[in-house]
Amino acid sequence: MVRTLFALKNVVTCNNSFEIFRNGVIVVEDGNIIYVGKREGLPYNKNYFDFIIEEEYGIAMPGLINCHTHAAMSLFKGVADDLPLNRWLNEVIWPLESKVDSESLLYGNYIAIMEMLSSGTTTFADFYFFKELIESVRTIPIRSVATVALMDMVADGESYWKRLKNIGYFIEVVNSVDGGRVTLALGPHAIYTCTEPLLREVVKVSIANSLPIQIHLSETVDEQNYSRLNFGMSPVEYLDRINILSNRVFAAHCIYLNDKDIRILSDRHVNCVHDPSSNLKLASGIMPMYSLVKQGINVCLGTDGCASANSLNMLGEMRLALILQRGLRLDPTFPTAKDVLLMATLRGAKALGLDKKIGSIEEGKRADFVIFNGRSPRLLPEHDVVSNIVYSSNPLDITYTVVDGKVLYEHGRFSNLDIEKIFDVFGTKALALLKDAK
Amino acid sequence: MVRTLFALKNVVTCNNSFEIFRNGVIVVEDGNIIYVGKREGLPYNKNYFDFIIEEEYGIAMPGLINCHTHAAMSLFKGVADDLPLNRWLNEVIWPLESKVDSESLLYGNYIAIMEMLSSGTTTFADFYFFKELIESVRTIPIRSVATVALMDMVADGESYWKRLKNIGYFIEVVNSVDGGRVTLALGPHAIYTCTEPLLREVVKVSIANSLPIQIHLSETVDEQNYSRLNFGMSPVEYLDRINILSNRVFAAHCIYLNDKDIRILSDRHVNCVHDPSSNLKLASGIMPMYSLVKQGINVCLGTDGCASANSLNMLGEMRLALILQRGLRLDPTFPTAKDVLLMATLRGAKALGLDKKIGSIEEGKRADFVIFNGRSPRLLPEHDVVSNIVYSSNPLDITYTVVDGKVLYEHGRFSNLDIEKIFDVFGTKALALLKDAK
Repeated sequence: MVRTLFALKNVVTCNNSFEIFRNGVIVVEDGNIIYVGKREGLPYNKNYFDFIIEEEYGIAMPGLINCHTHAAMSLFKGVADDLPLNRWLNEVIWPLESKVDSESLLYGNYIAIMEMLSSGTTTFADFYFFKELIESVRTIPIRSVATVALMDMVADGESYWKRLKNIGYFIEVVNSVDGGRVTLALGPHAIYTCTEPLLREVVKVSIANSLPIQIHLSETVDEQNYSRLNFGMSPVEYLDRINILSNRVFAAHCIYLNDKDIRILSDRHVNCVHDPSSNLKLASGIMPMYSLVKQGINVCLGTDGCASANSLNMLGEMRLALILQRGLRLDPTFPTAKDVLLMATLRGAKALGLDKKIGSIEEGKRADFVIFNGRSPRLLPEHDVVSNIVYSSNPLDITYTVVDGKVLYEHGRFSNLDIEKIFDVFGTKALALLKDAK
Repeated sequence: MVRTLFALKNVVTCNNSFEIFRNGVIVVEDGNIIYVGKREGLPYNKNYFDFIIEEEYGIAMPGLINCHTHAAMSLFKGVADDLPLNRWLNEVIWPLESKVDSESLLYGNYIAIMEMLSSGTTTFADFYFFKELIESVRTIPIRSVATVALMDMVADGESYWKRLKNIGYFIEVVNSVDGGRVTLALGPHAIYTCTEPLLREVVKVSIANSLPIQIHLSETVDEQNYSRLNFGMSPVEYLDRINILSNRVFAAHCIYLNDKDIRILSDRHVNCVHDPSSNLKLASGIMPMYSLVKQGINVCLGTDGCASANSLNMLGEMRLALILQRGLRLDPTFPTAKDVLLMATLRGAKALGLDKKIGSIEEGKRADFVIFNGRSPRLLPEHDVVSNIVYSSNPLDITYTVVDGKVLYEHGRFSNLDIEKIFDVFGTKALALLKDAK
């Protein structure tokens, strides 16, 4: 039993009443938060603790939850930056993926996880190569949702059906990672890469095993056109017809939606993942976030992979999500910094089906949190601590990233990690892979 | 005479042919760049140098140039985040400014300059309180354009006329700062705060003294309406009628422009400063950057003040400028990372009339540059170094910020600065000032 006291200046809980404790403390016992509140009410004396981490100017907030990424795509950072999504996928990314080896993917994950931890992310929903993802999060114990990628409208489509049939194997692997830190999702790629039978099978497997579903949805005009041409309806209507839409689904992008689509997503309690950087960079478009939130849809945030958005920095993604909608709608009242911080924490947890476990700093939840050094040019004055985090902070301000009560990143250093080797192997392998790419 | 050799992995020059030197070196003699190129061609031996800074993985680029900010507004960070520009100015900012004392402004500048240096900015065009700006840049020797703010449609309007009449005093003060590091600009605030006679006087003084002009232009719908109602024409047409528009003008925001306005700005060689964060956050709108660039207008970048955008991070501003236009126009080919890096460096220098002196790493220019540590999860793989800087880097990657050949920021530390005192005084004074604000 390891007991740690974190004594801070501010604790931004992101709980349902959005409490912020000045002179706050967090007590962690074996990775669980057993107390959070003001220091003066702390029901333990100092002798109770094995470790005391005292940060006079520390500001704690829940770890950020990246609800859509492809971690190992860090390998393809900076490649074909100026192509639209369909050409980018077909001409560059898929050919590269067909050449990539397992070690490259593993090191791609390491680099992505390092980037995430250094920018305050403690959980990410990955959507890529399962085996290497699992291997990487065994080594660096960040929290993750491992997704079984599925797409059968490709050359070796049958192999994906086999994955679905062998879902028990994937569940077993995920459960073998310590203490439920990794969970499983099904990942039918998109309506234009999966057949209807596959999608119907996904629904069955999802229900039978209580598994969430991660999917790309209504990302581009091309996808819209494909759906209208092939199914005579929108992508959302099509998925609804297959009965795939439910509160177990978290759908990335959700850009091209009409009123009917939004009503369906709302009625089915689908979670929508906003990925503004990727959508802007690839010139895909912009999620009509206001309409979704107004219809009661749970909107959360993701960065997408590092080849499409070139960054996994969720602090930046929060800021972008915040200001983008305001500027587009010429309305400075929506969203607020608080709205966006919740999207990146509690609402993200809900989307992944993990809100009983993470998403806020609350007693009974796992100890996933970030500590900022409030004594910085960006986090002063301390007039509105939430505004400062969302609008003003950057990764330079992060002093601790904690997952399951373990400090994985501290003052610029990664715990128990041979970063020199990671940089060497990753840098060399990625460059070799990209040698012939545009 | 101090001679320093910077030996790096990559030198991104941002010169006219956009050269990038692998295994590059920069030789600095008394603040001047006297050599830049590949290491193997270096015409000096090691004994020539007083200092050698060797960064095996270092990537140098020109220091970023922030062409529009109000540095001391860092005092008002996080105040009234959710108001549109006119209410934000009238109800919150101007009342606060009427209460602010000189020491607060000085410390507001210190905090702003610290934020800028830590995010790679080496030059900023300020538009605020002249006296305290000068005092602050004497203490922290960053490069700056000090602007004499002018607006006579206010209670003490006469005082601003006096400033114009005494322009010789301001020139003298600016020249008294070492070696031309600070230059002067005239700052008629906007068409809705300056009378026509004042604007006409600004033109005369500007011509007589070869001074650039910084102005807010076409920022909001309200400004448009004001102009139509009072002058029967657009803000651009109105300024053109007064003959104020020329290549000496750098105009902030430039959002609401019709084709005729853009043609005028192009014909007059006006420089336009894009401030996307501020414009989005305050829900002002978005610059039609593509149309401006297509018409040959010199577009550069700024962050605006830390009360409107809550951040002075030009790395973030580059990334935002890059992806915003692509997503809006659904065109992933404009702008490119290179375009935006030039906007933040060489084109910014041109806008401020300083392109003979700064904006690129070239022989004959002053030594203003930034060094990144390329050995980072963000800057690897080294496939496209410019893409990595603009899309992927954040301030965590900056190891040196150099102005006039002096290292002002190094591995998270500020040279010769009592930062504890600055944090204490700033934090206390700003909080006291904001106590009664929303």
